[in-house]
Amino acid sequence: MTGRQNRSGATIGIDLGGTKIFALAVDNGQIVGEAKEKTPVHGGPLAVVDALAAVIGQLTPSAPAAVGVGAPGAIDHRTGVIRWAPNLPGWIEPFNLASALSAAVGDCPVLVDNDVNVGTLAEHRLGAGQGHDDLVGIFVGTGVGGGLILDGRLRRGPTGFAGEIGHMVVRTGGRRCGCGGRGHVEAYAGRAGMERRARQLADRGSDTVLVSLAKARRMTSSVFARALAAKDTVALNLVEGAVEALAQALAATVTVLDVPLVVIGGGLADRLGPSFVARIEAATAELVPGVQTGALRIVPGDLGDRGGALGAALMAGTDISLPAPG
Amino acid sequence: MTGRQNRSGATIGIDLGGTKIFALAVDNGQIVGEAKEKTPVHGGPLAVVDALAAVIGQLTPSAPAAVGVGAPGAIDHRTGVIRWAPNLPGWIEPFNLASALSAAVGDCPVLVDNDVNVGTLAEHRLGAGQGHDDLVGIFVGTGVGGGLILDGRLRRGPTGFAGEIGHMVVRTGGRRCGCGGRGHVEAYAGRAGMERRARQLADRGSDTVLVSLAKARRMTSSVFARALAAKDTVALNLVEGAVEALAQALAATVTVLDVPLVVIGGGLADRLGPSFVARIEAATAELVPGVQTGALRIVPGDLGDRGGALGAALMAGTDISLPAPG
Repeated sequence: MTGRQNRSGATIGIDLGGTKIFALAVDNGQIVGEAKEKTPVHGGPLAVVDALAAVIGQLTPSAPAAVGVGAPGAIDHRTGVIRWAPNLPGWIEPFNLASALSAAVGDCPVLVDNDVNVGTLAEHRLGAGQGHDDLVGIFVGTGVGGGLILDGRLRRGPTGFAGEIGHMVVRTGGRRCGCGGRGHVEAYAGRAGMERRARQLADRGSDTVLVSLAKARRMTSSVFARALAAKDTVALNLVEGAVEALAQALAATVTVLDVPLVVIGGGLADRLGPSFVARIEAATAELVPGVQTGALRIVPGDLGDRGGALGAALMAGTDISLPAPG
Repeated sequence: MTGRQNRSGATIGIDLGGTKIFALAVDNGQIVGEAKEKTPVHGGPLAVVDALAAVIGQLTPSAPAAVGVGAPGAIDHRTGVIRWAPNLPGWIEPFNLASALSAAVGDCPVLVDNDVNVGTLAEHRLGAGQGHDDLVGIFVGTGVGGGLILDGRLRRGPTGFAGEIGHMVVRTGGRRCGCGGRGHVEAYAGRAGMERRARQLADRGSDTVLVSLAKARRMTSSVFARALAAKDTVALNLVEGAVEALAQALAATVTVLDVPLVVIGGGLADRLGPSFVARIEAATAELVPGVQTGALRIVPGDLGDRGGALGAALMAGTDISLPAPG
């Protein structure tokens, strides 16, 4: 019952990623603390709950007022169950993160949603989408995820998969996606899909610096940026393919939803910078009907990799005032 | 002031088409009358207002309680202005149909929306979409239009173009659409686009019964149905192309919106029948991510060409009880 006696404590927003946990505490609308931890590689969901509780404990001595968690995978927001999360180590079966974490931190309310949904919410309320009631958020990193704000509210959809732009087919029978499908946006525009293709091309004899820059490790967003700067042909072609795939999917989305703003975030997009976003904007405009083209803007996100935790805190019910930039 | 004294009269729903006007009157939730008229080919918007007022006069002696109009083109639902309507004869400039028609029929409220939006509303409330809070309506006729019901409400979008699935690009640089764009769904799956392509192929020497069946007149949906029955190769290929284009656009729509039901209506779809819809369903399912495929159903509409007028009456605020079928 201690938790119920401390409802005036801080609200915690957590970005639960495949490799790290980032959390922040919000009190009276101000960010009062941040904490970081590695995501446990052994122990599955129970170890993750312990790690999240430890991070929360670093941020607030008493039970928090509420906790929001953004996590990768298929999540039932209403129940707090993470149904499917291939990027969380050992998450084999559906597991109710909300109830387990709530029990671990004094029975406070815990809300869980997809990381891109909370990221989109953050850009809408605090970032590049402020003042817009209708927008698409798209996050281009290891994979490609998307979220929708329609009429000022996050659309989750009946199965919670609304906004899954990364798994839209843009090339029928095309490249294999990490999810097993073919021709999905993510296979062309996600860092992991681009890495698979780059290594395949190198194995077949294409000359590229991507493999040597990455060495034995994964081909990071920085590796792609450096290869582009060196005018590496394979990297140039892969990024061109990413721009085309994203433009096709965004054009379809904008056409059907009548949404005038797209905000692009995510590690790869952040690293490739505003010129990458500008190329996507130009390519998308060519594929959108004339009546909509004039109104459409595609812009970089403002919040970088803090967006997920900020959005998770917003989802948990707190307001946040960010300090003015500069 | 007569109109204001008769607010208890019937509610009128009107489907304003490029060639005909179909209207029905609803009183106490029952359909109490129907009327039909040709759309005037001369005189532009003012002649259309006169024709609509005459049809309303046939249905109700006193001023109606409210009027709803579904019309083709780009419509500002909030103001009642039809901004762009290439299929309405002489509709050169934006014209406020709502205020002109209201003045002509006793100052009653007049609401105007896109014909596919009201058609989607009708299938949602009275037809194949009953009981579903999230669905896509798609109408395959001369052109291809679509409407969205999300969380139980029609989504119009900030510019009123939400649901314009017909103008989604499915083949970059592909066939010219009636709107001037390239590769749009409507160029492959709309009757007019299919007719243009059939005549082009015949001119280039393809052997097809489509042109001889149509004679000097337009190539109707029945002509396509008869050519299919005769196993005409050009007709078979055109319908296959229509199925592929619709499947690609619907898969993109379903993926991004997480909508478990698609209702397909419109003259061409109605004429080609349930097998056409079943082919679209099968082709779409192949392009939708695994997690969504199981839940997705694509079904024919229930309301045929009365859907537009029914939806217009619903938009005007009345309930409708349809007699049980049979």
